[in-house]
Amino acid sequence: MSNPIASVNQLIHHLGKSVSLRGWVYSKRSSGKIRFLMLRDGTGIVQIVWMKGQIPDTTFELFDKLTQESSVIIEGKVREDKRAKGGVEVDGEKLEILHIAEEYPIGPKEHGPDFLLSNRHLWLRSIRPHATLKIRDRFVKAIRDFFDTNGFTLIDTPIFTPSACEGTTTLFETEYFGDKAYLSQSGQLYAEAGAMAFGKVYCFGPTFRAEKSKTRRHLTEFWMVEPEVAFNDLDANMVLAEQFLEYTVQKVLAECKAELEVLQRDTSKLQNVRAPFPRISYNEAVEILKSKNIPFEWGNDFGAPEETALAESFDKPIFVHRFPAKIKAFYMKADPANPELALGMDCLAPEGYGEIIGGGQREDDYQTLRSKVKEQGLSEENFSWYLDLRKYGSVPHAGFGLGIERTVAWLCGIEHLREAAAFPRMMYRLRP
Amino acid sequence: MSNPIASVNQLIHHLGKSVSLRGWVYSKRSSGKIRFLMLRDGTGIVQIVWMKGQIPDTTFELFDKLTQESSVIIEGKVREDKRAKGGVEVDGEKLEILHIAEEYPIGPKEHGPDFLLSNRHLWLRSIRPHATLKIRDRFVKAIRDFFDTNGFTLIDTPIFTPSACEGTTTLFETEYFGDKAYLSQSGQLYAEAGAMAFGKVYCFGPTFRAEKSKTRRHLTEFWMVEPEVAFNDLDANMVLAEQFLEYTVQKVLAECKAELEVLQRDTSKLQNVRAPFPRISYNEAVEILKSKNIPFEWGNDFGAPEETALAESFDKPIFVHRFPAKIKAFYMKADPANPELALGMDCLAPEGYGEIIGGGQREDDYQTLRSKVKEQGLSEENFSWYLDLRKYGSVPHAGFGLGIERTVAWLCGIEHLREAAAFPRMMYRLRP
Repeated sequence: MSNPIASVNQLIHHLGKSVSLRGWVYSKRSSGKIRFLMLRDGTGIVQIVWMKGQIPDTTFELFDKLTQESSVIIEGKVREDKRAKGGVEVDGEKLEILHIAEEYPIGPKEHGPDFLLSNRHLWLRSIRPHATLKIRDRFVKAIRDFFDTNGFTLIDTPIFTPSACEGTTTLFETEYFGDKAYLSQSGQLYAEAGAMAFGKVYCFGPTFRAEKSKTRRHLTEFWMVEPEVAFNDLDANMVLAEQFLEYTVQKVLAECKAELEVLQRDTSKLQNVRAPFPRISYNEAVEILKSKNIPFEWGNDFGAPEETALAESFDKPIFVHRFPAKIKAFYMKADPANPELALGMDCLAPEGYGEIIGGGQREDDYQTLRSKVKEQGLSEENFSWYLDLRKYGSVPHAGFGLGIERTVAWLCGIEHLREAAAFPRMMYRLRP
Repeated sequence: MSNPIASVNQLIHHLGKSVSLRGWVYSKRSSGKIRFLMLRDGTGIVQIVWMKGQIPDTTFELFDKLTQESSVIIEGKVREDKRAKGGVEVDGEKLEILHIAEEYPIGPKEHGPDFLLSNRHLWLRSIRPHATLKIRDRFVKAIRDFFDTNGFTLIDTPIFTPSACEGTTTLFETEYFGDKAYLSQSGQLYAEAGAMAFGKVYCFGPTFRAEKSKTRRHLTEFWMVEPEVAFNDLDANMVLAEQFLEYTVQKVLAECKAELEVLQRDTSKLQNVRAPFPRISYNEAVEILKSKNIPFEWGNDFGAPEETALAESFDKPIFVHRFPAKIKAFYMKADPANPELALGMDCLAPEGYGEIIGGGQREDDYQTLRSKVKEQGLSEENFSWYLDLRKYGSVPHAGFGLGIERTVAWLCGIEHLREAAAFPRMMYRLRP
């Protein structure tokens, strides 16, 4: 076929021209002398219209053979149609069948989540997963653009580590040539070494938690982006986090209008994601909970109900900072104004999506950090390289981590994290 | 201090102005009434000059205390100096010491590779690793930009998989809630499912091989980028690969001049990386080896010596295509012109760096692929989802994988892959 090959999302630039389209049958229907085919090619869906009399009868016979998801090459002329989603329709000319699909398991009827997850390799073709993963794609691009154009250096931190950053009960373990290796839960400690070498760095890769949890908020494998900045303190860290979130969320809103519409996402709350965000201390947060008659004891960590209650009081993401030191990781710097508190911060998303960012200023004093390593029963040998960072030109530094799937779930307004990953991994889900 | 904070690589924009610099002592020396300090801040290195008489004696006393890698804040005025690397020097005014470093283990003397790798968390601060990882950073950005602006959708494929893509002897294994999971060696099979949903996709993440190999060409953990395109055949795949490589290599050349100079890289061969690349079939490659009197039997795979010999005959990367099917993976499509051959392709880098890209057209016929799965003794159950892609609208498709560390080693002209990773993982190297 000699027409130029066009993708569906580019058809608006081919008005009045004949093009060659390649894709899959999303659906089809007949109405008297007209045949309609919804063609999907991965970039969009367009309606092809076939008129009896204007094309050979053999083409109509081919049309009748087509099943859902059959693959085809279609030649046709692009016509403006303002009612259509992409603003165009195609008047079908030639039709070539590449492959007739067997009866497709996913139809317009309702399917259970387990069935859909077992068919995730096919479910990706459906309109909602497609929109969700497109948003993830644009969100990830916005994240990388933000750091790449703000002087950050990408440091790919290792997945295989000799020890855990926090706790060991949720670690995946593998044999490593007679030794044991653990799959990383965070690149932070390595990113700190990177920050001392490059000033501003970020790592961005998969992380792993062997959590025996079946809630909608947990995956065993998820992607996390973690910036780390030399000379930043807690305040500078919050400024970075809010600028980062504003930039990336506004980018998604600007570039994913069609996808957010598919997901019927009310974007008003997302429009509000503009720096600065409210900052409330842990102590203030406890007061807010009290004022709402939510039972909560000072010193505990917030769970989902508390996070939701706190976020409800504001119309944009909020920072909660200065947590009780004993509920935070060993590497967090103590607040000089009150050593019972740690210079940590969480960013809570609105609408009950909870913590999407966690971070803070790191302990930069060698002796203090060494004591904390010992107190936690961690191996000083395993952490000696990390302690080194406080021996050779220690500087204040801070960073944070943002979980991709959780944030994408919020952006998309979807309930389960699993839909924010192409092939989600959970306690009972290792396939496909 | 009230001067604006400036990073070293931005000083050229502050000529004649006083700025505040924050960083680490790279080196220092004295000469009569002058003190010189090379300050490194992660973005570059600049010389600070202190003149006796022009600053308080107490500042000179502080200067004398400074050790290599001590962290400091310096106020000073930026002066043009065309002899200096960044085109500037700084006339030192104030000096504040944040932390006096203990005796730094890495000095100007030669260190063995094992010592340096054990101190990788500090070694990153040295000028060569810094340049290498900056090049990696820019290369990765160019890769993502290429795909993100050419209609590809990022699909993060899973690390945990229930089975291996090729063989099982080099798989890392982990217990997965009473089941076994294996760490992915390639995202390709999942990317194929993605291509049927999005048309053009890429995955880009860490991959794992438990190879008991101690050569300079092997890491147990390395990053790989893998595009996969629906409707592409072998020829289109080669066109994509050469455009991709031209774009990314030329970007690195344009953006990393200083870093390539640090590494004393002769870039003339890299300048040559321009599409189209020569294409030679496996059969032609065997003839070339014969003509060079290199003993080689038809049907074998090329090793490092053969790859080097083949690449030597050309001044740019080359494609070798259409390999004997029996040395290629089960998912490769057989050449319709000769079923003994598979529609695979390798791209060989010049200068003895060997294969940097491997890929090809995938088998798209259900029965053929199913037979191959059986022939290889693979579990049909584990691959049933992959076979599904040939049941429901199968289309020709192709893709390839490029190993980041191997390509960065070539770009940098370094001998060992391990220097192309921030924290390399090898058979005997799991720390730091």
